[in-house]
Amino acid sequence: MRRPPIITLTTDFGTSDHYVGTMKGVILGIAPQVRVIDISHEIRPFQIAEGAYVISQACRYFSPKTIHVVVVDPGVGSARRPILAEIAGQYFVAPDNGVLSMVFDGAEKVRHITAPRYCLQPVSHTFHGRDIFSPIAAHLAAGVPASRLGKRIADYARLDFFRPTRTGKRFWTGLVLHSDRFGNLITNFHIGEFPDLPARTFELNSGLQKLARLISNFSEVQPGELAAIIGSSGYLEVVANQASAARLIGCEVGSPAELVLY
Amino acid sequence: MRRPPIITLTTDFGTSDHYVGTMKGVILGIAPQVRVIDISHEIRPFQIAEGAYVISQACRYFSPKTIHVVVVDPGVGSARRPILAEIAGQYFVAPDNGVLSMVFDGAEKVRHITAPRYCLQPVSHTFHGRDIFSPIAAHLAAGVPASRLGKRIADYARLDFFRPTRTGKRFWTGLVLHSDRFGNLITNFHIGEFPDLPARTFELNSGLQKLARLISNFSEVQPGELAAIIGSSGYLEVVANQASAARLIGCEVGSPAELVLY
Amino acid sequence: MRRPPIITLTTDFGTSDHYVGTMKGVILGIAPQVRVIDISHEIRPFQIAEGAYVISQACRYFSPKTIHVVVVDPGVGSARRPILAEIAGQYFVAPDNGVLSMVFDGAEKVRHITAPRYCLQPVSHTFHGRDIFSPIAAHLAAGVPASRLGKRIADYARLDFFRPTRTGKRFWTGLVLHSDRFGNLITNFHIGEFPDLPARTFELNSGLQKLARLISNFSEVQPGELAAIIGSSGYLEVVANQASAARLIGCEVGSPAELVLY
Repeated sequence: MRRPPIITLTTDFGTSDHYVGTMKGVILGIAPQVRVIDISHEIRPFQIAEGAYVISQACRYFSPKTIHVVVVDPGVGSARRPILAEIAGQYFVAPDNGVLSMVFDGAEKVRHITAPRYCLQPVSHTFHGRDIFSPIAAHLAAGVPASRLGKRIADYARLDFFRPTRTGKRFWTGLVLHSDRFGNLITNFHIGEFPDLPARTFELNSGLQKLARLISNFSEVQPGELAAIIGSSGYLEVVANQASAARLIGCEVGSPAELVLY
Repeated sequence: MRRPPIITLTTDFGTSDHYVGTMKGVILGIAPQVRVIDISHEIRPFQIAEGAYVISQACRYFSPKTIHVVVVDPGVGSARRPILAEIAGQYFVAPDNGVLSMVFDGAEKVRHITAPRYCLQPVSHTFHGRDIFSPIAAHLAAGVPASRLGKRIADYARLDFFRPTRTGKRFWTGLVLHSDRFGNLITNFHIGEFPDLPARTFELNSGLQKLARLISNFSEVQPGELAAIIGSSGYLEVVANQASAARLIGCEVGSPAELVLY
Repeated sequence: MRRPPIITLTTDFGTSDHYVGTMKGVILGIAPQVRVIDISHEIRPFQIAEGAYVISQACRYFSPKTIHVVVVDPGVGSARRPILAEIAGQYFVAPDNGVLSMVFDGAEKVRHITAPRYCLQPVSHTFHGRDIFSPIAAHLAAGVPASRLGKRIADYARLDFFRPTRTGKRFWTGLVLHSDRFGNLITNFHIGEFPDLPARTFELNSGLQKLARLISNFSEVQPGELAAIIGSSGYLEVVANQASAARLIGCEVGSPAELVLY
């Protein structure tokens, strides 16, 4: 059977307004066979880094050709460009503000979207999710080739917030990338960059807490007890068994974290 | 390809209970090919005016024949009637309490739903979303003609809350229709009724704030600075760049607003 | 027309993280024709009893063969088993922690899922929603027979929290099963077990409140007034007309309730 095309949505629009429903109406009006899948609409308003993290974690579990619409867009209506990126066989439609930084793999092809005939006219100054990003994604799903939607560019925004900095022989400074619903604090120390971490003596400092114990599942510690874990996305996390680490140590997104390897 | 029929849902049910999932189960049991699209389930409990605003903004972006189910229903189980309205080529299934007021266009055809065979039996007194509105919408999507679902009526509820009142030669009194996730305050002054606003000297009073500056995109003011803007739905909004106008001026849904045109 | 297979999701994952979107990506990658329907992702973290209530209410409105994925899983990564249950013609995929207790009907067939080839490899220790429950549900939807996913077991978890206890000739002790978005308090006294309740003199004690009035719809009492009602799921509820009973009497999920029948 033919796979119906998939468009995913990641925004900071929340779900109490008509914004997300409106985007779905626009998409289905243009491409009725599309499956629209919500990743999250609860990105905190204007938090580009949070949007970048969430889409980078979800996208890899979707099929080739999936089109991801990512709208965290504090600069809507300003000179910032709308872009279309092809990355590892998938498409990403987003503002050019770095929100795709964690998806770029070095081989991405990025286009500046300049295709008024594939946008809703007139384009408003405040709701490009409706007027640009949704219809562009829908036309792409309906078969319009990417090359018709805009020219390749090289000077698009790439942010580096998610990479830890080496600050000494044994020291790396990083931050909390994300605090999830359970209060797990996902740091930006990735196992891919510290492959021997499980075999080493280490210290993870977050807030006033020094953690030296690496568990592999929550039940290794008592309910309420803190530990470090390599989470389901490969990042080192500060967690507590059946409790919120965020609340226990008073940290949140953007809080500094430090890794010491002995 | 054939367009799958679309049913949208707008309710005050929230998403922490089984209510919305149950409605989807009922719909798909009757009409398995339907695409069910959530507009919002975060209408504040019993806030008919808020539901009226949200559905009126979203519905225009959906295709002809779309069926919109709108359940904000403080009078569930009382004598208030369930209605089915045909408006501009779309269908609306809702309680007769004014929640469709902002969608009515003067040419609407409204029916009092009286079709027990197309409802879930026995009909409960507290969950008509499950027992009446969902199955009626699903049967409509499956091809049952509207005329079989009930007789035309003329005395259905129409509310006027969303129209400003002229209170002097230069003065109009209105209100805040909606406060969105970003804290933008959407007033009920629509550019369609004040088409020369952008060319005029004006004052928009909301809370203790007097605004005289009309911007066309957020980046024209500093982060945190207030201004007026004609929003993506054509209503005059009080906004702040990357900040919540609602918090800055202490207004919310229903707060009075005044427009002065010089 | 052929019915597309349906997979429903009930979790405590919330919607601000990538977890739910990731599960949908996994499902659609394996079984592209599936309709994925959210029941709720707002089960309070680790509240098995709440998840048990929500899925038990929603599932009965879905078609035969529907596959329900229920992930409220404080023991993820520990020795607790993943199970697949066949109940009344539907399938349930969940951790073996009692979260299906209110769906079991005495004739259920339960299997211990042991089918690494139908899971995402390597299986993480912290996200079985992605690595086990979603792919198992998707393969089942795609036609893999249940018998290939694991062997029948008899010693799975069954919890009894939802059954009231008779504590005297006229007395039953129960509890608040669920507090919904409107603040209605759903107790565990079901009309099926007290069929003559509407004809009897009774007292329902919850918090400091003694209720003796059974209404059949909200409008029988004044706005803000408390009463008892047999709710849309057949359970006795403490409600207030257009107000939150939970707030008015200070009760919540798990609060004790007492029924006295005279």
